Amino acid sequence: MAIAGPEIERLIALLAKLPGLGPRSARRAALHMVKKREALLHPLAAALAEVGERVTVCSVCGNVDTSDPCTVCADASRDPATLIVVEDVADLWALERASALRARYHVLGGTISALDGFGPEDIGIGRLVERVAGGGVREVLLALNATVEGQTTAHYITERLEPLDVTISRLASGVPIGGELDYLDEGTLAAAIHQRRPFS
Amino acid sequence: MAIAGPEIERLIALLAKLPGLGPRSARRAALHMVKKREALLHPLAAALAEVGERVTVCSVCGNVDTSDPCTVCADASRDPATLIVVEDVADLWALERASALRARYHVLGGTISALDGFGPEDIGIGRLVERVAGGGVREVLLALNATVEGQTTAHYITERLEPLDVTISRLASGVPIGGELDYLDEGTLAAAIHQRRPFS
Ligand SMILES: [Zn+2]
Ligand SMILES: [Zn+2]
Repeated sequence: MAIAGPEIERLIALLAKLPGLGPRSARRAALHMVKKREALLHPLAAALAEVGERVTVCSVCGNVDTSDPCTVCADASRDPATLIVVEDVADLWALERASALRARYHVLGGTISALDGFGPEDIGIGRLVERVAGGGVREVLLALNATVEGQTTAHYITERLEPLDVTISRLASGVPIGGELDYLDEGTLAAAIHQRRPFS
Repeated sequence: MAIAGPEIERLIALLAKLPGLGPRSARRAALHMVKKREALLHPLAAALAEVGERVTVCSVCGNVDTSDPCTVCADASRDPATLIVVEDVADLWALERASALRARYHVLGGTISALDGFGPEDIGIGRLVERVAGGGVREVLLALNATVEGQTTAHYITERLEPLDVTISRLASGVPIGGELDYLDEGTLAAAIHQRRPFS
């Protein structure tokens, strides 16, 4: 039973596909836009149209942005000697939120997965090796997910980069900041114990 | 520190103004759109543009929709004898979600508020009285918020409709379904006790 015109119902259905918005919050968001036509609906329509027109994949790192090279690659203040390898653009954005390292990135766009028939070339590992071999990179930080596929991919990349003169590192495992021990899985707890550090 | 082009940062800033989306989820939503260009970003831009172009206020009930009369007013299967009065379009949508009554609506667009200098005519109560006086309405359900302003407005409307031959009703007060007693305020609990019903 539609309670609004087809254009609005369609807008709600599309909004409900966004992460973090269910059908109910999509409806609230649509209503909010419709009520704030000048302040929100029109600017948002324009912003989406503009992003839609200009968005592109960065030819250097695989990030998505409205310029190529992307904002991150074009930032001259970043250290070109450190290259962070991630599975997905979302991981790049998440690491940037942490603002922990002003480095460069390489987005694989996936992981090696025997199950899905995804081999090394499906995620362009040749391109990554080429980029590192091109020089200027001293450390490759493999910021891959702590999943079987992520770790398989990390091992494969390590093998491929072995002949090159680079340090290969990975993210630390352990207890999340603010994490409560009795909510953590055994694997995380075991990693946190094995990688324990001096109390400072 | 921008991690994406100005168009994308602007999109994120606008998305963060939607109810239910904070800065972090706005970023996630923007990235999701950017990655699903064909399936989500383009259709959403088109839907917003179309809604923006066509959205209007219903001249009958005050709802917002892409047609006038709105979808609700145009629905011939609704009972014209029952008129639900709400403060805001959001309340109309919320009541429709409950699908409890296939009635007509009247959106006031606010409440009488001495503090804000909002009088009866600022919320068009004359128009409501006229509509009811026009005939065909047997019950007016005042679905106003359980706030001081909402109840002041309800009392005022009751006085104005007194001379007309209509039943005036209000929403029941009580414990929300699934609500836990020890989380409810005293006013709600007192109302639930005073309006208690036979156990069936
Ligand atoms: Zn880039
Ligand atoms: Zn209407």
